[in-house]
Amino acid sequence: MAQSIIETGTPPITPPTEHRLWGGRFEGAPALSLEELNRSLDIDKRLWREDIEGSLAWVQALLRAGVLSLDEAGALDAGLRRIAHRFAEAFPDDAPDEDIHTLVERMLYEEAGQVAGKLHTGRSRNDQVATDARLWTLRACVRIERELRAVQSALVELAAANIEVLMPAYTHMRRAQPVRVAHWLLSHFWALQRDRDRLTAAVDRVSVLPLGSGAISGSGFAVDRTLLKELLGFRHVSQNSIDAVGDRDWVCEVLFVTSMVATHLSRLAEDLIIFSSDEFRFIELPEAFTTGSSLMPQKRNPDGLELARGMAARSIGELTSALAMLKGTPSGYNKDFQEDKRLLFGAVDAMEMLLPTTRETIAGLRFNSDRLADVLSDETLLATDLADELVRRGLPFREAHAAVGRLLRSADQQGVQVSQLPESVWAAAHPQFMDPHIPTVSPEASVDARSVQGGTARPAVVGQITAARDALS
Amino acid sequence: MAQSIIETGTPPITPPTEHRLWGGRFEGAPALSLEELNRSLDIDKRLWREDIEGSLAWVQALLRAGVLSLDEAGALDAGLRRIAHRFAEAFPDDAPDEDIHTLVERMLYEEAGQVAGKLHTGRSRNDQVATDARLWTLRACVRIERELRAVQSALVELAAANIEVLMPAYTHMRRAQPVRVAHWLLSHFWALQRDRDRLTAAVDRVSVLPLGSGAISGSGFAVDRTLLKELLGFRHVSQNSIDAVGDRDWVCEVLFVTSMVATHLSRLAEDLIIFSSDEFRFIELPEAFTTGSSLMPQKRNPDGLELARGMAARSIGELTSALAMLKGTPSGYNKDFQEDKRLLFGAVDAMEMLLPTTRETIAGLRFNSDRLADVLSDETLLATDLADELVRRGLPFREAHAAVGRLLRSADQQGVQVSQLPESVWAAAHPQFMDPHIPTVSPEASVDARSVQGGTARPAVVGQITAARDALS
Amino acid sequence: MAQSIIETGTPPITPPTEHRLWGGRFEGAPALSLEELNRSLDIDKRLWREDIEGSLAWVQALLRAGVLSLDEAGALDAGLRRIAHRFAEAFPDDAPDEDIHTLVERMLYEEAGQVAGKLHTGRSRNDQVATDARLWTLRACVRIERELRAVQSALVELAAANIEVLMPAYTHMRRAQPVRVAHWLLSHFWALQRDRDRLTAAVDRVSVLPLGSGAISGSGFAVDRTLLKELLGFRHVSQNSIDAVGDRDWVCEVLFVTSMVATHLSRLAEDLIIFSSDEFRFIELPEAFTTGSSLMPQKRNPDGLELARGMAARSIGELTSALAMLKGTPSGYNKDFQEDKRLLFGAVDAMEMLLPTTRETIAGLRFNSDRLADVLSDETLLATDLADELVRRGLPFREAHAAVGRLLRSADQQGVQVSQLPESVWAAAHPQFMDPHIPTVSPEASVDARSVQGGTARPAVVGQITAARDALS
Amino acid sequence: MAQSIIETGTPPITPPTEHRLWGGRFEGAPALSLEELNRSLDIDKRLWREDIEGSLAWVQALLRAGVLSLDEAGALDAGLRRIAHRFAEAFPDDAPDEDIHTLVERMLYEEAGQVAGKLHTGRSRNDQVATDARLWTLRACVRIERELRAVQSALVELAAANIEVLMPAYTHMRRAQPVRVAHWLLSHFWALQRDRDRLTAAVDRVSVLPLGSGAISGSGFAVDRTLLKELLGFRHVSQNSIDAVGDRDWVCEVLFVTSMVATHLSRLAEDLIIFSSDEFRFIELPEAFTTGSSLMPQKRNPDGLELARGMAARSIGELTSALAMLKGTPSGYNKDFQEDKRLLFGAVDAMEMLLPTTRETIAGLRFNSDRLADVLSDETLLATDLADELVRRGLPFREAHAAVGRLLRSADQQGVQVSQLPESVWAAAHPQFMDPHIPTVSPEASVDARSVQGGTARPAVVGQITAARDALS
Repeated sequence: MAQSIIETGTPPITPPTEHRLWGGRFEGAPALSLEELNRSLDIDKRLWREDIEGSLAWVQALLRAGVLSLDEAGALDAGLRRIAHRFAEAFPDDAPDEDIHTLVERMLYEEAGQVAGKLHTGRSRNDQVATDARLWTLRACVRIERELRAVQSALVELAAANIEVLMPAYTHMRRAQPVRVAHWLLSHFWALQRDRDRLTAAVDRVSVLPLGSGAISGSGFAVDRTLLKELLGFRHVSQNSIDAVGDRDWVCEVLFVTSMVATHLSRLAEDLIIFSSDEFRFIELPEAFTTGSSLMPQKRNPDGLELARGMAARSIGELTSALAMLKGTPSGYNKDFQEDKRLLFGAVDAMEMLLPTTRETIAGLRFNSDRLADVLSDETLLATDLADELVRRGLPFREAHAAVGRLLRSADQQGVQVSQLPESVWAAAHPQFMDPHIPTVSPEASVDARSVQGGTARPAVVGQITAARDALS
Repeated sequence: MAQSIIETGTPPITPPTEHRLWGGRFEGAPALSLEELNRSLDIDKRLWREDIEGSLAWVQALLRAGVLSLDEAGALDAGLRRIAHRFAEAFPDDAPDEDIHTLVERMLYEEAGQVAGKLHTGRSRNDQVATDARLWTLRACVRIERELRAVQSALVELAAANIEVLMPAYTHMRRAQPVRVAHWLLSHFWALQRDRDRLTAAVDRVSVLPLGSGAISGSGFAVDRTLLKELLGFRHVSQNSIDAVGDRDWVCEVLFVTSMVATHLSRLAEDLIIFSSDEFRFIELPEAFTTGSSLMPQKRNPDGLELARGMAARSIGELTSALAMLKGTPSGYNKDFQEDKRLLFGAVDAMEMLLPTTRETIAGLRFNSDRLADVLSDETLLATDLADELVRRGLPFREAHAAVGRLLRSADQQGVQVSQLPESVWAAAHPQFMDPHIPTVSPEASVDARSVQGGTARPAVVGQITAARDALS
Repeated sequence: MAQSIIETGTPPITPPTEHRLWGGRFEGAPALSLEELNRSLDIDKRLWREDIEGSLAWVQALLRAGVLSLDEAGALDAGLRRIAHRFAEAFPDDAPDEDIHTLVERMLYEEAGQVAGKLHTGRSRNDQVATDARLWTLRACVRIERELRAVQSALVELAAANIEVLMPAYTHMRRAQPVRVAHWLLSHFWALQRDRDRLTAAVDRVSVLPLGSGAISGSGFAVDRTLLKELLGFRHVSQNSIDAVGDRDWVCEVLFVTSMVATHLSRLAEDLIIFSSDEFRFIELPEAFTTGSSLMPQKRNPDGLELARGMAARSIGELTSALAMLKGTPSGYNKDFQEDKRLLFGAVDAMEMLLPTTRETIAGLRFNSDRLADVLSDETLLATDLADELVRRGLPFREAHAAVGRLLRSADQQGVQVSQLPESVWAAAHPQFMDPHIPTVSPEASVDARSVQGGTARPAVVGQITAARDALS
Repeated sequence: MAQSIIETGTPPITPPTEHRLWGGRFEGAPALSLEELNRSLDIDKRLWREDIEGSLAWVQALLRAGVLSLDEAGALDAGLRRIAHRFAEAFPDDAPDEDIHTLVERMLYEEAGQVAGKLHTGRSRNDQVATDARLWTLRACVRIERELRAVQSALVELAAANIEVLMPAYTHMRRAQPVRVAHWLLSHFWALQRDRDRLTAAVDRVSVLPLGSGAISGSGFAVDRTLLKELLGFRHVSQNSIDAVGDRDWVCEVLFVTSMVATHLSRLAEDLIIFSSDEFRFIELPEAFTTGSSLMPQKRNPDGLELARGMAARSIGELTSALAMLKGTPSGYNKDFQEDKRLLFGAVDAMEMLLPTTRETIAGLRFNSDRLADVLSDETLLATDLADELVRRGLPFREAHAAVGRLLRSADQQGVQVSQLPESVWAAAHPQFMDPHIPTVSPEASVDARSVQGGTARPAVVGQITAARDALS
């Protein structure tokens, strides 16, 4: 059916108005300033692979729908594959085209001749770009999931290797109670586990095929969208064409997930920066994950960890941008959405740099057990255990808390540890301290007393490690 | 075991240092300015019900753990229930206490006497407030889910009732193609459906019991956390105590979900504001959902819809606040988290005001079919259909697009609709227009041609309505 | 001219449609759900003083414009003053009115009778609320400026009192070089000085009178806006009525300033939290600015400082909300703006709580000079001074840096300070170290070498203190 | 003094550890993953000009301070200028260096030999990068200011050319009152005028020299910072070295200003998108500032305006990122700040694309006077004028408002304009309507009645234009 056209005296077969996919109704070209503003190729060129895959699937759908002949479909298929080959070898960074879709269609004229003009039948850039970007994002999510899992694995292995080492846990950045370092490491594991859960849930909402939605009302040709879905590896077909071209929820959701991941990496980084400081010295960072100063010869700065904090701030802003962008539009496709790719790519790139660095940093951490033992000898860490002991002796906890408080105040005033206080002070703080004798407490006993699920006692932590490994398998 | 204490000459049984849960170690009271800054009762009083429920469960756990005798447990249980009763009658808004936990414990001394001092055994406000706030949020999510569903139901019923009415769909705020109004209404349905999915996923991550985590290292008493989980109706028990008291992901996630909902309500509102404007007149808003001006007597302003837009902006900022708050902390509990409740309550309140108003507004919408018919007579809406017809006649789409573009330019220049153009202009635009005859297109035919899944043809929309109803059942 | 009306048989003089300022065109009342959403009295009641002041000025303007007779103006003036009196005694928190403007007008009918209906002549709530909120903000800015200045004063006085005390300065949270504690304290002074500058600049843009702009096109009566400006104490008269009712830049700008202030207080708080930790012990926080734990008797948590961090996060989100709100509107007044007051009040309240607490905390700080001296004996703090000495001996700095680096590596490996290294190691690191002799460096010499403007040498810091005091005078 | 060194057998003169500015203390190189994360050259290469200028000034300062001989200074100066020349010809995009500072220093070894190692004396990358980025920003602000002024000029000239054309003004996106199109155009002028004011104020805070602050405590060499300030064209010298290297307020402030500008361009864009829609047709956009659709031949989409909306969303997120980044750090320099340049460059680039496109779009706008006249015949636009006339006849405004409301309700019910209502309806609405006769109102009279300052009457608008031109001169 297409062949008859070739025989008529139709206008010369070139992409109309140079490299644009439109222009018939227009008297002139766009203003240069608009072209510059509008041009997205520098950003969306990263979608070239997905753009061609989407077009390959579209060729199949048009063939099945009877829009293309077998020959035409073959020519388009071959042409698209040759373009992919050319891009893989060297992407034409200086191409003048408006966007990746325009570039591919223009090159398709070069590769396949006039039949190139049939590719865009029943399709719009509105459904096309949504398809490309979702495909790209699905792959990015697979990579992020893998890297997240690897960071988790580093945490659980380091925990398993250090199950006997104790450290002080902090609340309000003040010494609270002794815990196993394994317990502290695993606290970061579970945060990332939630992120993987969220990522998995997000992926299901990314994996929706928009192609076939046309510009807004659905394709004008009866393409088989289930076929398209299967060819491209999506899980679902979008239910409504207006929604399909105007939905950027999945961008926001992926940015939310990366913001949470970045926030967790930032909190881990903050812990590590503080715990590895000259004053804490709980942890030694691997030298290869520190950098020097151009001025101060002694410096070994935790730049990678600080950048984790900085990139979390960036991610939060990117999420803000995406939500503010979406919020400011009516339904359907609006050009405001052009910003979505810059945000997505930025967030994914940050993840792909941060996660490997974090994983390797964790793998190289060393705990300074001498220093930890020294700090654990601070008996204020055991104040709760003293109060708990009074409770076991029958005192209401609130009274026990006050009694230990008085004891600590005396120790403060005398500048000694509580164990160094004379019996008279213990007795004055509360008679129950003497009945039957001054309680003996220790970091080891403190830790072992926290045997509840999720506690820091050895069996509880061993159980956690098992659960963590299960979550990774 | 507790009774022996009463007989000894222990200090008088009052909550120590007036109304504070701490103070033994302190020489004086906090500064007034700090007290004012630190005091959260005005906000967290909304958690009173959950705080008491958490304590009732904790009493059971302490009883099972042997920390409380049956009598003591009974006294605490009865006392807590009496406090709940007092709160339900009249909350003491002028209470001087630091927070809801302190207030409840102080009142428990009034109700149950000295045994009140046993309640806080093995528990910290760190795990307590996380438990309260998660419980409160779970209930809020149930209410939001129900209201979301009701809005969706209003959309699907209005769609079903208006399946034959056509309207122009817009991209870039410019007329694009005809669609069924049902199709446009349903586009908003599916956005809210994703929100319900996200909410459901979030709820599973909210439904994690922190209680039993103590301050940071786990409770010092062997409480049965599975029992606690069941008593309080949580789905999961937290796996790590440090993470349990320092996790505010669930706050961020709920705020993300409400931001997405608000963004969707904002986009729907933007559509409605524009479509009901004097210039569009596609839709009439129910008068009861408009308000007047204090100065201009003619005004019927869509205040509720504008507030939906405004509240979306607010929600986005609340999410930003929560993420920035969490990002700026090391692991474990930090007082920065006090801000989380204000954010949560604000977001939930906004949802509970916006969703019912939106639902009722939708239920009262009327479509102005005369005006819609008039607008649909604009033949530029059918430009794609003309091009599609040329494709069916064998022309490559890109050429067909250009040919229709030339035709439209002629119509523009002559100030007429394309159907009013003489045959010669059609022929000049492209010979194929004449072969066999000038194509006849219509909004009805245009709509019916979009029969793909997710398209706007009648069967596709009927299928959508069925799918939508299924999603609600 | 007004009197003749009283004599005719006009409808009974009550505020029309109960308590609303509009309604003539409406057949029924607004829906309950809309009323609840729309009602802003709970928030904007804080503007009652400014609302009445604005109306008092408006009465004068209407009198001059000949719209009111002297008697009418007198009656309105007296009525408004009586309302102010009633509010000052007890604000009617349960008033059913839509907003503060409606409440005041309704009460004015009670106080002044039918003439109340003349007050709103030529005025709209659009220009009225902008006037009220700007007035309120101007006063809030005065209070914030005063509190900012007081915090700065506390910093400079503490600096002056501790000019001889040295401490390590940190970059990347790693020991960098010795500085005077005064220098560190003053670094926070200058940040707040910029905030005061920004606040001053913002105030000039807040101080613009919108009243007289009517709903959008300007008042229909020839009121003297310069008179209004002077009566209300504004500096400028708005230049364009559409802009005047639709401008919320000043809200964004004030929120930006408070976000910067909160960010600075957060960074100061972060310094103080870390420097007062058990591990650093550079600084002791005043006990009255710490709080205890409900579980752990030993705790003295820096809650106020952590809340400064948390509130900075909140402020950033409030700014985000305001910008996203404004961005999502067309020009002129839109109801979305109702959210602006909640944001403004929240930000100002946070400032008014944070600034006094911060000031008092600073005033009570004590430096632990023993601990500081101990830390300053870490010779790596003087690595730059060693390199600088080599430069003075003629070595290019880059070589000197490398040489000191090698020296430090040796000290690391041997676990000693550089001064404990044998001469041979110095010589091996670089021959210049021996020529003429191993350099002697000290924290005192290091500090005194930084005599450039803005440096930490004594004269430079004394100069800074003078400049700081000048900035406050 | 430097020459003696050359004669001793010092190690070979190469930049130590390949291309790094540090390394002496380190046993190995940084991990590859850290290097990738840490590397900022792709971003900060845009600072090359400022980096070299800063170094040229630093050479002068070191010469004056006696650190460099005249020959050395000459060699460094010439070398730096040759590097600038090389960069201007072709920037080495594939350079392996960590950042622009490292690259320049490495090339300086190529150009100037061993003396290159003297350049970094008494300087740190901490003060260097702050100097570079502030210099770059100052220049960007000059360009932005110029473009802002040009947009304002386009607005005022269009206003002056259309002073007689009327249009409806909108509040709540509903027709409010007639205004001059010049008045509406100027409303956008004044918003941008505030932006220029803010930019001017921001520039003064950007224009502060950090150089000479060293890493944190001030340069160890007595460089003349006033000389540096003058050589580099800064207005002020920073007062405190800790603050100078840790201050990123100016980044936040510039991003705030660009967010406000972008918000204003977004609101203007929203007005233009709506006013140029098929339904409004008040304005015709220049065709060269619209773009087509790849699918729908009829489309002329306002892409540039939509991108203004999208970029405003992006700017708001960039500001959020900057504030969250800064908030999450202690005082002094932290590597988190590396993100600041990406944010700054992004915001400035957006301005430099948006402002020219906006200016040209404005210059090409055409008002559709027929359509405007048609819309202005909607008499509800004059409802306030009817009420104002009743006020002039002595009625309290509140009563007049209600009376006009009743009249409009009647017109609504009968489907006519108010002027078409029979006298009896007027009389029933309020007897004053008949005394002396039914009021005559018109858009022209309405506009002329708004003669207050800032109103839409001709003289007021002429005055505005004069004031606007003054503001530009």
